[in-house]
Amino acid sequence: MNEVPRVDDGIVREGPADLGGELHALVSRLFPICRSITGEGVRETLAILSEHIDIAVREVPSGTPVFDWTVPQEWTVRNAHIRTASGRVVVDFAQSNLHLVSYSEPVARRMPLSELRAHLHTLPDQPDLIPYRTSYYRRDWGFCMRHRDYLALEEGDYDVFIDTTLADGSLTYGEVFLPGTTEREVLLTAHICHPSLANDNCSGLAVLTLLARMLAGRQNRYGYRFLFAPGTIGALCWLAGNEDRLAGIDHSLVVSCIGDAGGPVYKRSRRGDAMIDRVMESVRCAGRKVTMLDFSPYGYDERQFCSPGFNLPVGLLQRSAFGTFPEYHTSADNLDLVRPDHLASSFRMITDIIDILETDWVPLNLSPKGEPQLGRRGLYSATGGHKTTSDITMAYLWVLNLADGSHGLLDIASRSGLPFADIAYAADRLKQCGLLGKAEDSVNRQT
Amino acid sequence: MNEVPRVDDGIVREGPADLGGELHALVSRLFPICRSITGEGVRETLAILSEHIDIAVREVPSGTPVFDWTVPQEWTVRNAHIRTASGRVVVDFAQSNLHLVSYSEPVARRMPLSELRAHLHTLPDQPDLIPYRTSYYRRDWGFCMRHRDYLALEEGDYDVFIDTTLADGSLTYGEVFLPGTTEREVLLTAHICHPSLANDNCSGLAVLTLLARMLAGRQNRYGYRFLFAPGTIGALCWLAGNEDRLAGIDHSLVVSCIGDAGGPVYKRSRRGDAMIDRVMESVRCAGRKVTMLDFSPYGYDERQFCSPGFNLPVGLLQRSAFGTFPEYHTSADNLDLVRPDHLASSFRMITDIIDILETDWVPLNLSPKGEPQLGRRGLYSATGGHKTTSDITMAYLWVLNLADGSHGLLDIASRSGLPFADIAYAADRLKQCGLLGKAEDSVNRQT
Amino acid sequence: MNEVPRVDDGIVREGPADLGGELHALVSRLFPICRSITGEGVRETLAILSEHIDIAVREVPSGTPVFDWTVPQEWTVRNAHIRTASGRVVVDFAQSNLHLVSYSEPVARRMPLSELRAHLHTLPDQPDLIPYRTSYYRRDWGFCMRHRDYLALEEGDYDVFIDTTLADGSLTYGEVFLPGTTEREVLLTAHICHPSLANDNCSGLAVLTLLARMLAGRQNRYGYRFLFAPGTIGALCWLAGNEDRLAGIDHSLVVSCIGDAGGPVYKRSRRGDAMIDRVMESVRCAGRKVTMLDFSPYGYDERQFCSPGFNLPVGLLQRSAFGTFPEYHTSADNLDLVRPDHLASSFRMITDIIDILETDWVPLNLSPKGEPQLGRRGLYSATGGHKTTSDITMAYLWVLNLADGSHGLLDIASRSGLPFADIAYAADRLKQCGLLGKAEDSVNRQT
Repeated sequence: MNEVPRVDDGIVREGPADLGGELHALVSRLFPICRSITGEGVRETLAILSEHIDIAVREVPSGTPVFDWTVPQEWTVRNAHIRTASGRVVVDFAQSNLHLVSYSEPVARRMPLSELRAHLHTLPDQPDLIPYRTSYYRRDWGFCMRHRDYLALEEGDYDVFIDTTLADGSLTYGEVFLPGTTEREVLLTAHICHPSLANDNCSGLAVLTLLARMLAGRQNRYGYRFLFAPGTIGALCWLAGNEDRLAGIDHSLVVSCIGDAGGPVYKRSRRGDAMIDRVMESVRCAGRKVTMLDFSPYGYDERQFCSPGFNLPVGLLQRSAFGTFPEYHTSADNLDLVRPDHLASSFRMITDIIDILETDWVPLNLSPKGEPQLGRRGLYSATGGHKTTSDITMAYLWVLNLADGSHGLLDIASRSGLPFADIAYAADRLKQCGLLGKAEDSVNRQT
Repeated sequence: MNEVPRVDDGIVREGPADLGGELHALVSRLFPICRSITGEGVRETLAILSEHIDIAVREVPSGTPVFDWTVPQEWTVRNAHIRTASGRVVVDFAQSNLHLVSYSEPVARRMPLSELRAHLHTLPDQPDLIPYRTSYYRRDWGFCMRHRDYLALEEGDYDVFIDTTLADGSLTYGEVFLPGTTEREVLLTAHICHPSLANDNCSGLAVLTLLARMLAGRQNRYGYRFLFAPGTIGALCWLAGNEDRLAGIDHSLVVSCIGDAGGPVYKRSRRGDAMIDRVMESVRCAGRKVTMLDFSPYGYDERQFCSPGFNLPVGLLQRSAFGTFPEYHTSADNLDLVRPDHLASSFRMITDIIDILETDWVPLNLSPKGEPQLGRRGLYSATGGHKTTSDITMAYLWVLNLADGSHGLLDIASRSGLPFADIAYAADRLKQCGLLGKAEDSVNRQT
Repeated sequence: MNEVPRVDDGIVREGPADLGGELHALVSRLFPICRSITGEGVRETLAILSEHIDIAVREVPSGTPVFDWTVPQEWTVRNAHIRTASGRVVVDFAQSNLHLVSYSEPVARRMPLSELRAHLHTLPDQPDLIPYRTSYYRRDWGFCMRHRDYLALEEGDYDVFIDTTLADGSLTYGEVFLPGTTEREVLLTAHICHPSLANDNCSGLAVLTLLARMLAGRQNRYGYRFLFAPGTIGALCWLAGNEDRLAGIDHSLVVSCIGDAGGPVYKRSRRGDAMIDRVMESVRCAGRKVTMLDFSPYGYDERQFCSPGFNLPVGLLQRSAFGTFPEYHTSADNLDLVRPDHLASSFRMITDIIDILETDWVPLNLSPKGEPQLGRRGLYSATGGHKTTSDITMAYLWVLNLADGSHGLLDIASRSGLPFADIAYAADRLKQCGLLGKAEDSVNRQT
C-alpha cells in the first residue's frame, strides 16, 4: 500500500536497452558533417536521421521571400586553407570545419599577415580552442583558429584559398508528422545549421529523432510534429508555409544543447503561463528539478515562434543554457562533452513531459460530499493511528479533494507537491473504483 | 495619547480568574475515559461537558447510511488483557485504555506467542511508550504495548481475553448552538473519539466547552455552533443532517492539540483566502505569531468540511501540529504534556479570533477630502515637529485613509501592520467624533 | 554598435553648467528666512523663487473654511528671547529661528525656572542641537534649545519676551503652471512652511524652482503645475480651490529632503501601481536604484492628496526619508548637510522621471511575424556565433517582441531590465526604419 506502482499504460518509456549508447552513436555520426543554413551538409544530416524515422525533406528555392527575409543562396564548401609563402599549411578546413567562417565567399589570393589579420577570429581567453563564427547575411570570408596558433604566425605573405560556391539553390529542412487521435498538435524542433558542435545541436537532432521513432510506434492523443530546420530562416520558412496550422499547436519545445552534464534549464514561453511552462515544474532530469528562466527574445528559434505575430506556447529546453558553458561555440563542444547517460536522461525527461501532456485529464469527484470510504475499497490503511500517511494515500486524498472539475492532474500534482505519475496512478485507481468521472481531457482545455 | 487604551466592549476576555486551572481540571476529568467513535465513553464525556454548557446529545443508529459511509455498530469494552500460561498478566486494559486496539472484537483464546505477535503493536523507536491504534472499519483485534515489554515476552502460550461487544446501537455526538443577532454562523468543532490522549483531544473539548460557556453569557452578532463529534463518521453524520445550514456558516475552526507548549499552527481552509484564514495573520498566542500552513487533505475533520462538495471556510487550529510532536498518539500525550498556561493562552487566542469576527466592520470616512483636523478633537499631538508619531495616531490615520467602503477593520490592520485591537479602538473613537460612518457590518460581507 | 547612443531630443537635461552650485546658492538664500504656515517668511521665499520663474502668489484670508479646517491667523514674529534676572540672554531668536516654537503667542513675563521648564524643548540624545517644534493649532508658546544649555540653566527667575502677533491676515502659497500640448497634467509640490531647515525643505523648493525654469524653456506634452504651499493647510487650500482640475492630473510627486547624500527613497502612492510608482523602478540617482516604500498615511502633503476623497497618483520623493536621518528637524539640517552635488543628482533624477513621462509611447511592431531582418538595416552584428549579444541589440529585440500594442516603453524597460533610455533609443531607431508604428502616446493611456 505504501509503494506507488507506476502506470502501465503501454508507453515505452525507456526506448531501446542502450538508449544512451544509441543516442551517442547517432550524435557521433552527425558530428563531422559541415552543416550551414543551406547546402549539402543539411541534406546529409537529414539522410542519416531518415534511417530512424521517415522524414519529409523540404526544399525552399533561393530568393524566396519569407516575411521580412529572403532565402539566401546555397553555400557549397569543398576546401579551405591558409598557407605560408613557403607552402606550409597553417589553417586547414579539412582538420575542422569550424576553421572556416560559415558562408565564406570564395577567395584565392596572397596577402600579407597585416591584411589577413582582419579575417582571423580567435578566443584570447581560450587560446587552445577554435571559435565558431558565421557571416550569413553579409558577403565576407574568414578563418577561425586557436589563439595560440594565431600568436605564432610570422610576418610575411600568406596564400588564402577558399573553395566555396554561393549560388542559387535551395534551403533544406526536414519535417516529421505523426498524427494523433485528436486534431491538436505538439511541435518539437531542433536547429540543424551548426557544423561540428556536438551539444549544439547534434544532441537535439539525435534526441528528437529517436523520440519520433518511439512515438511513431504507439497511438498518441496529440499529433507530434518534428522540425529539423536551419536557425531563423529555416524556422521562418516553416512558419510562412504553415500559418494555418499554428492555431492547432497546444504545446511546443525548442530542444538544443541537450547532451551535456548541466541543467536542465528551461526558458519559459513569451506567454509565461502556458501548460508547457507549468509541466516543466513537475519533471526532473537525472533527479534534478528544472531551473526556470523567464522568456527573453534572444536564443534559438523560440525567438521566431514567440514573436508577437505568432506568440506560440514555445519554450526552450536545454541542459546547460547556451552561452553559459565554456565549450559553447568552440571546438570543445565535441563528442567528449556530450555523454550517453546525459543524452539518455534528457530523452527520459522529454518522455516524462510527453507523458504528462498525453495523460493529463480533469477528474470529477462523483462522491464529493465528505471523503468516500477508501478503506472498504482497499485504498486506505485498515489500521488507524499512525503518525503519517503514505504518499499514495495522500495522492488519493489530493485527487479527491481537488477533483471539482477545475483542476487537471497536472494542477493537482503541482498543488500537492507529489509526482505527476503518482497523481495519475491514484486518479486511475479512483476512476476504476467508480469514485471519479472524467470532466474532460486536458487536450481539450484552453489553458 | 501615546498609549493605546483597549476596547471596553463588555466582552469577558479572560474567562474565570484561574482559567488555565479550570481548563486543566476539565481535561483531567476527561482524560481517563475510554472514548471511541461509538459507545459509552462518548456519552460519559458529553455528560461531563454538559456540566458547563447545555449540550444537545444526538444519537444516530447503527447502519444509518451517511453519504458514502454507514454508521458502524456500537462498541462496548469491559475488560481486556493478555496472560501467560502461568497466569501472569502482561498487558492489561485496566492499566491504560491505549493497550487495546480501539474497536477490537471479542476474543477468549490461548495461542502461542508466534501467533499473538501479529496482533501486537509497539513503537521500536519509543520503547517506553504505548502507541494508539484503531481498527474501525475492519473486524480485527489487537493490543498496543511498550516495545520494552514486548521484547521481554517469553516464548510459549498466552491467554488472550478481550471482553467487548460490537452490536447495533448508535453513534453519539453533542451539539451546542448559541443564537446570534444575525442569521450567520460560526462553527467550532473538536473530535471526541480519542481515548486517554490529553492533547488529542481532551484539550480541544475543554477549550471549546468553556468558550461556549463564555459566549453563552453575552450577546453575539454571530450564532455559534459547537460540535463535539467522533472523527470522520461523526462529522459526516452532522453534515448529512445539516446540509441546509451550511450556506449560513461564515467562519469555522477545527480545534485539536491545543494544550501543549508549541505553535500555534494554523492550516488554511481549502479556499485559502477565507476571512478565517486572514484573521489568523492578525492574532498571537503567548506572544507568538501563528505559523500558517497551506491546506492539505489529511488531518482532522476539516477533511470532511473542505471536501469539494462542501468547501466550507474551515481551518485547523493547533498548538503543535498533529504527527509532529513525539508524544502524538502515544501514552506520553498525557496530563503532563498539557499545561494550564498553554490551555489558557490557546483559549485567549480563540477569544481574540472571535473578537475580530464579532467586531470587524467597514468604516466610511465622512470627511474624505484631505485629513480631518484631528488636533481639535484631541486625537493628534498639539505640538508638531517630532520625528515619529505614536501608534495610536498612526491607527487614526490608517483608518481614515482606508475608510473608503472597500476595507474592513481586519483589512486595515493587515495593511497597516498594526494590531486589530488598535485599529478597532481608533475606528471607534473616530466614529464617536462623527468622522466615520458604518458602510456595513463585515458579518454581511461576502468575502 | 555595442554602445548606446543617447536620445538627442532637444531636452536640456543638465540645466546650467554649474547646476549643483546654482541650486545650493538658492538653498542658501532661502535658508535664513523664518517661514511658518502663514506670514511674511512665505512671501519673502516666494519672492526669491520668483527671480527664476513666474509665480502666481495666492492669498487665502484667515478664517476661510477649507474642508474640515479653517485658515489660521497670520503669524508675525519680530523678536524673542529669554534673559536671566541679571539680564544675560540665554536663548535668542536672533541666533536661530528654530529657537522659537513656531506660532508662539506673544509673552512678556518674568517667571521662575520651574515654571519656564514646561515651555522648553530639547533633545537629550542630541544635546548640541536645537530641535524644531510647532504649535500651529493650539495657542501656546515655547522655546527650543540645546540640551547642554538647558542643563546649564540656574535656578531663579527669567524674563521671557516673545514679540509676535497672531492676527487676521492670510495664508500665502505660490503656483506655477506651464501648459503642455495636451490637457493632461503633472503636479509637483514642495512645502514652504519650514524655517531654517536646509534639507527640509529649502532643497525641494530650490530643485522644483529650477526645474520649472528648465521646463518653461521647452515644449512639453504634459502641462506642469508647481505648488509651493505650507504643509497640510496650504495643500488643502489648493485642493479646495481646484477640485475640478484633479481629474486632469496623471502623475504627481511631493518633493522634500532632496539635498542630502542618502537615498533616494520613494514612497508609493496610495494606489500603489500608478505609472509614477512604476517609473521610479526605472530611474537611478547618483547610480543608485530607488528604495521603494509602500504608501503609509504619515508624511508630507501626499497625506492630503492621497486621502480617500482624492486618491491622486501622488508619491513622495526624497533622498533620506524624513525622520530617519539624525539631522532631521534639528539645527543640524543646515547648509553643510545639503551639498551641491546631491542637489544636482536629485535634479537629474527628476528630469529622468519627466523624460519617461514625456517620451513614453506604445509601439506596434509592423513586422510582427518572426523577427524582422535587423542585419540589413545595420541594427544587428554581421558576424554571428558570439556568446552574448550587446545591450542595444537586446533593446531592439525586446522592443520588437513586446510591441504588440499592449506595452509602453516603460513596460518594456521594466520587463527587460534595460534602462528606459536604451529602450527609447531602440524604439526610435526601429520606428525610423519603418519597423514600428505608434499605437498611442502613453499620455492618452489610462493606466
